[in-house]
Amino acid sequence: MEEAEEIFKEFKEHSVAEFFKKNRQMLGYSGKIRSLTTVIHEYVTNALDACEEAGILPELEVTITQLGNDHYRITSKDNGPGIPKKHMGKVFAQMLAGTKFHRFIQQRGQQGIGCTGCTMFAQITSGKPTHVETNTGKGKTYIADIMIDVKRNSATINNEKEIESPERGTKIIAEYKNIAFTRGDYGAGEYIRRTAIANPHAKIIFKDPNNQRFVYERAVSVLPARPTPGKPHPKGLDVDDLVSYAHSSQERTLKTFLVKSFDRMSGAKAGELEKKTGLDFKRKPGSINWEEAEKIVAAIKETSFLAPSTKELKPMKEKQIREAILNVLDPEFYSIKSRAPATYRGGVPFIIEVGLAYGGNSGKKANGDTRTEIMRFANRTPLLFDSGSCVITKVVNELDWKRYKLKDLENIPLSIIVNMTSTYIPYTSAGKTAISNESDVYREVQLAIMECARDIKRYLSGKRKKHERRTRKQTLVRYVPEISRALEDLTGKKKSDLELKFMEIINKKYGDISLNGEEPKEEEHKPMQEDRRLQGIEAAQEDLKKMQEEQEAKENEDLED
Amino acid sequence: MEEAEEIFKEFKEHSVAEFFKKNRQMLGYSGKIRSLTTVIHEYVTNALDACEEAGILPELEVTITQLGNDHYRITSKDNGPGIPKKHMGKVFAQMLAGTKFHRFIQQRGQQGIGCTGCTMFAQITSGKPTHVETNTGKGKTYIADIMIDVKRNSATINNEKEIESPERGTKIIAEYKNIAFTRGDYGAGEYIRRTAIANPHAKIIFKDPNNQRFVYERAVSVLPARPTPGKPHPKGLDVDDLVSYAHSSQERTLKTFLVKSFDRMSGAKAGELEKKTGLDFKRKPGSINWEEAEKIVAAIKETSFLAPSTKELKPMKEKQIREAILNVLDPEFYSIKSRAPATYRGGVPFIIEVGLAYGGNSGKKANGDTRTEIMRFANRTPLLFDSGSCVITKVVNELDWKRYKLKDLENIPLSIIVNMTSTYIPYTSAGKTAISNESDVYREVQLAIMECARDIKRYLSGKRKKHERRTRKQTLVRYVPEISRALEDLTGKKKSDLELKFMEIINKKYGDISLNGEEPKEEEHKPMQEDRRLQGIEAAQEDLKKMQEEQEAKENEDLED
Repeated sequence: MEEAEEIFKEFKEHSVAEFFKKNRQMLGYSGKIRSLTTVIHEYVTNALDACEEAGILPELEVTITQLGNDHYRITSKDNGPGIPKKHMGKVFAQMLAGTKFHRFIQQRGQQGIGCTGCTMFAQITSGKPTHVETNTGKGKTYIADIMIDVKRNSATINNEKEIESPERGTKIIAEYKNIAFTRGDYGAGEYIRRTAIANPHAKIIFKDPNNQRFVYERAVSVLPARPTPGKPHPKGLDVDDLVSYAHSSQERTLKTFLVKSFDRMSGAKAGELEKKTGLDFKRKPGSINWEEAEKIVAAIKETSFLAPSTKELKPMKEKQIREAILNVLDPEFYSIKSRAPATYRGGVPFIIEVGLAYGGNSGKKANGDTRTEIMRFANRTPLLFDSGSCVITKVVNELDWKRYKLKDLENIPLSIIVNMTSTYIPYTSAGKTAISNESDVYREVQLAIMECARDIKRYLSGKRKKHERRTRKQTLVRYVPEISRALEDLTGKKKSDLELKFMEIINKKYGDISLNGEEPKEEEHKPMQEDRRLQGIEAAQEDLKKMQEEQEAKENEDLED
Repeated sequence: MEEAEEIFKEFKEHSVAEFFKKNRQMLGYSGKIRSLTTVIHEYVTNALDACEEAGILPELEVTITQLGNDHYRITSKDNGPGIPKKHMGKVFAQMLAGTKFHRFIQQRGQQGIGCTGCTMFAQITSGKPTHVETNTGKGKTYIADIMIDVKRNSATINNEKEIESPERGTKIIAEYKNIAFTRGDYGAGEYIRRTAIANPHAKIIFKDPNNQRFVYERAVSVLPARPTPGKPHPKGLDVDDLVSYAHSSQERTLKTFLVKSFDRMSGAKAGELEKKTGLDFKRKPGSINWEEAEKIVAAIKETSFLAPSTKELKPMKEKQIREAILNVLDPEFYSIKSRAPATYRGGVPFIIEVGLAYGGNSGKKANGDTRTEIMRFANRTPLLFDSGSCVITKVVNELDWKRYKLKDLENIPLSIIVNMTSTYIPYTSAGKTAISNESDVYREVQLAIMECARDIKRYLSGKRKKHERRTRKQTLVRYVPEISRALEDLTGKKKSDLELKFMEIINKKYGDISLNGEEPKEEEHKPMQEDRRLQGIEAAQEDLKKMQEEQEAKENEDLED
């Protein structure tokens, strides 16, 4: 037997950069195609975030140049605010350093790992530093080559210089090996296309390694409102958070601490909590212990608060989702729902938006079949990978689609678009490609999809009813000439008049149904009621004419036989 | 527009513990059921690792006690080597500190995060420290309450004391809120059951919150060979690793560095590399630069090396997999394959073992259907969650099962058991529930499953052929009495003799086929050839008797009608 002392002799501490170097797959660096897309994702999200925080309409240029087998140079250029010289090392070569981690603000990046991950991956595959040129708009461009000292999680900066230049923004050039470009669903091109769909206020130019140039022009010239830091909502706040917020607070009383720290916490609400807990709210916030914090959290659970303020949340909005759906999918029918803001664990507010599109180019074509397709977005960032471990996929797979007349998802031309907007997306891993299965998020996604699915069900059952009604109308119409002829003999009335009379009666009941099933496409987007208008004599005449033409055509065919 | 200086004013650095506190879902803490299972997973794997490294046959006792709504106390006790007092804080309350991260050794834990993650999750949900009692076998038990200072990623230790005690091992008691116990597929009970299946050398006692006690007795009294640290294999080694190994080496020449640092690198092989690269291998290892390292890696790619040494890899072995399959699934047919050791990125050696079981209790019952079930293991640790993002699931989903006569995985009583054994499992996230899609791993899993699937195909097509042959035999046998009667009249020979003669001829061709389709189950596990023996006169007599009995039974039925 080996003794404990012997075993623990090899105890060592490691840096977070060493951890992510060894576990690079957790950052998205597994597989050549995915690795390239991960790099593009990091550069693009950082550029968009920087522009939006500075209030600049984003203009990005991404270029991928092939240098050899599995060997590429990636260039990313933006018109953002630039990076101050003294922060360069931390932005590009120090993990867990950044402005985003601790603030309660809706941004794409949020961890302070991704950009440094790129620098590290470039360095461990190509051996080359990441070249950065950045200009904060004060006439000077700062240029440097940056590497990361992995053991110490800190930057090594070389070849620094400053040149005169009026052009504001940041340009990154880095070389990668062991990555690969593809035009497929998981490639950088698709990533950028989906980014453009969800961010119509950005202009994005993309040059692929085959020298193809894609320009996604700005469709909206208004910047989404600048993201602002928010406060946590009391509902869902956990005890640990409350204790740590309280203990680091500078406020003089528990009451002012509560009112100033949390969203929707008025003086009256704090007073209510004081009463319910029986605690003295004039004490210093730092003096509360775990049991007291537990009491406050329990009281919060029993108190109603306004829904989280949405001022810090900037969802895609229905108009943009509709444009994306109509442009890309041109569906037979669609439905868009935006849920009211909710919170998950720790009072983090979020909004779920869902678009369901049916028919047209909806769904994913594969081997001649059309299967249901899920397009996932988080803060307008497309999520391409790890679909299987994402809460969105989980909801879709677990939903009882039969209730919505959608039986076999494998064979339905359906596209499901889901965007989660939040000040903090609970990603399953640092690679940020899947949203974790938080129960509150699950429920909101589920409710939104169900609302849309109900619309589709209504549409499809309307379509089915219409089909049944059409069959009935066709049957009735078929007998009109015969009966009219018989009645002509009986009553002496003119057959054509009788026919018209009959058609008028039929159309009183089936006026909304065309005989050949070619309702104009537009109408199907409208609610069903509008369709149920009576069409009167003109429609009857037209139907009769059609019927007679068909009859003639049939007789001609019979003669030819 | 906001200026860069303004934006970067809020730049802050964060500890890895803060990162994982905010992103607790990355450690497996999302959802109440999953959170509880994650805790059990961390305690059990640490206990098993400690025992095995010390050469002790593991005996574990895990108790879950419900204290309130979503509120539990978890106790884990082992007979392992104990933890030296001075390492207590780092083991339980400092992330990225440990013995496993930097060593090239096959263990269940590997990151130095999990155990501290438990301490943190207990603390942020219940506010309570983790109580530890540990004894290294020298007559004293060290007792302490441990918390983590999240901001500084370091331990806070209270209530320390030492008592006299002869009993070696470690006991952990911690309280958790916001977790839930379930008896289902994702619960702690199922986790422990699967652990017992894959670790028959361990005795595990599990007491669930309903006071049910499960004892998994030791089925094998031999400890798996103690894991030993290995060396990286040159194939798959990347340039960055080579440079960093070389620069931290104390060896005097590049040649001795290569020979001593890498698996299967003989002096002769190093000489071959020297020739191919044209470099001077008498130089200090620290003197090589990136381009030179690239040359060495390129030369390694063109040189053949022995497959990685397997002495540090301890797979489950066929015998154990077979026992698990027979015990748990009692299948109609099974096939087990163990691939030869291979390497993935960075020369990490691994072995893939696959067992496919068909029929019997194989597959997953759900709503009356039986679907294909995948049981994933990594270093004998069951992987219950995130199936969708695991390379094993990916292989299964992408395999062309039709080629193996298995059309619709949704409706097949098939269990697929895969165990990856490696000195480093490339998990998709720190929660360690899914294996990343590394191409080398994908290929090995695929090949192993395909080998097993071929066996199943052979079995199923044998079964089908047998069925066809049985039908033919039955048809022939049916006409024997009639033809015999006719021949009796024609030739004067006795009908019963003729019948026997005919049956003998039929059984020469169809002797392996029983008329009623009830082949003994045992035989189906054997290769097909053995079945194809001729059964001769006895079999013929028996078949004839059976046939006559059936005939009589039928006639009686007719009479009754």
